[in-house]
Amino acid sequence: MTFKSKLDAAWSKSGSMLMVGLDPDPNRFPAELQGRSDAIFEFCRDIVDATAPFVCGFKPQIAYFSACGAEDQLAALCRHIREKHPTLPLVLDAKRGDIGSTAEQYAREAYERYGADAVTVNPYMGHDSVAPYLEWKDRGIIVLCRTSNPGGSDLQFIEDRDGTPLYLRVASMVADQWNRDGQCGLVVGATFPQEIGKVRERVGDMPLLIPGIGAQGGSVPDTVRAGRDSRGLGMMINSSRAVLYASKGPDWREAAAEAARATRDAIQAAA
Amino acid sequence: MTFKSKLDAAWSKSGSMLMVGLDPDPNRFPAELQGRSDAIFEFCRDIVDATAPFVCGFKPQIAYFSACGAEDQLAALCRHIREKHPTLPLVLDAKRGDIGSTAEQYAREAYERYGADAVTVNPYMGHDSVAPYLEWKDRGIIVLCRTSNPGGSDLQFIEDRDGTPLYLRVASMVADQWNRDGQCGLVVGATFPQEIGKVRERVGDMPLLIPGIGAQGGSVPDTVRAGRDSRGLGMMINSSRAVLYASKGPDWREAAAEAARATRDAIQAAA
Repeated sequence: MTFKSKLDAAWSKSGSMLMVGLDPDPNRFPAELQGRSDAIFEFCRDIVDATAPFVCGFKPQIAYFSACGAEDQLAALCRHIREKHPTLPLVLDAKRGDIGSTAEQYAREAYERYGADAVTVNPYMGHDSVAPYLEWKDRGIIVLCRTSNPGGSDLQFIEDRDGTPLYLRVASMVADQWNRDGQCGLVVGATFPQEIGKVRERVGDMPLLIPGIGAQGGSVPDTVRAGRDSRGLGMMINSSRAVLYASKGPDWREAAAEAARATRDAIQAAA
Repeated sequence: MTFKSKLDAAWSKSGSMLMVGLDPDPNRFPAELQGRSDAIFEFCRDIVDATAPFVCGFKPQIAYFSACGAEDQLAALCRHIREKHPTLPLVLDAKRGDIGSTAEQYAREAYERYGADAVTVNPYMGHDSVAPYLEWKDRGIIVLCRTSNPGGSDLQFIEDRDGTPLYLRVASMVADQWNRDGQCGLVVGATFPQEIGKVRERVGDMPLLIPGIGAQGGSVPDTVRAGRDSRGLGMMINSSRAVLYASKGPDWREAAAEAARATRDAIQAAA
């Protein structure tokens, strides 16, 4: 089963286009987990189990694990997701980008060590920086295109001689050259719904990973209207902090589940 | 002491602009290290100690450690470099790039966990993706500009309405906006000496990290002529594989030292 077919099946089966981002910040953990050595794993595992009925997949953000040397807990979490929720795609958010021989190592890290179905990558270094990922035919790569942060415009909005902004050049490059085997997706931020629409128009039914709703302020209805594909699907709409930290009290699991359910419903209502 | 002043002192004291890149590939290790659980650390440590007299710094490439779960060995290696060779800058080659809250985590990973003096970053996500690194006033960031790989041209050569290629827009952005406290450097590949010259012209005496000599084929004399600053310095010219794997026999330490010495001399001769 490929990343694409697993994602299609997850959208159909779950009826959800919500992806829960796992950005564990120990300072924001509920009191009962403070001081536990495995707190990162335990927190994320319980969030995963509580929200699984309402999502089309999970997206761990590797920086949060690496900053505190918790790679083992990330590996345990990925194993947990694969074993307990085998129908839900696992996207490793790593945004790597390097020359071929090094990219081979990053591909091994994402696909072999963590068993991810897909990984986010940065396009700045061009085709040979993504080629080693594409060798893994059953896995996906999701390329940064129009990111949700304010500074995204610094480079991504630079227009070429024909007036085409860089992010649309990236979208075209991925659609026309890198996606020969249907392994690619694109990251476009919910904070820029107009650009989501332009990317969707350019790339057909390619899956879009859309961060930026919730804490970053993107609108769910605007995102959905701009980003849905020809089947009314095609999006992994990411929410991290609004789900993870819905409550710091003893009801944190239920609060996360409720936040996920409500976000799924808001997405469905707009679709 | 800042990254910049440490680098200046290392250039003066060592008389070398060679930086040795630590990209440990266990398949290429000498026979005596095969099968050793700490082989990655031991190999890199001995390369570091053998080549230290001939270099201006070391650059571990994190992907090679992450692919095989060897973060602990990377941490031990970084500690070794800081303790045994405290005058030599330690550049963590990670090429990270992410939104602010995540970039904070990556900055902690590089500067706190590994104690790096500087880290390589990707500019695609713009100013707020580098701002968290710049908060660490005594550390450096080295921004990808014109990379040494063939695919580098895919994006970096796209010209704006005025005919300025993207890599020069990045050089200008870093020099004019991101480098207010003198913390920045740029990555420009030795495989494109013409572009090294254009970047040097644009950014004054900003340090350049230059990969691409050795295995990738860049010319040392062309690189040095194009990249030297107003003092005849200003470059960290990286060599990895040509030094690390100079011999697979029992003389591997001496062969690495000899390769480093010869490369340093070739750089000096051209300067």
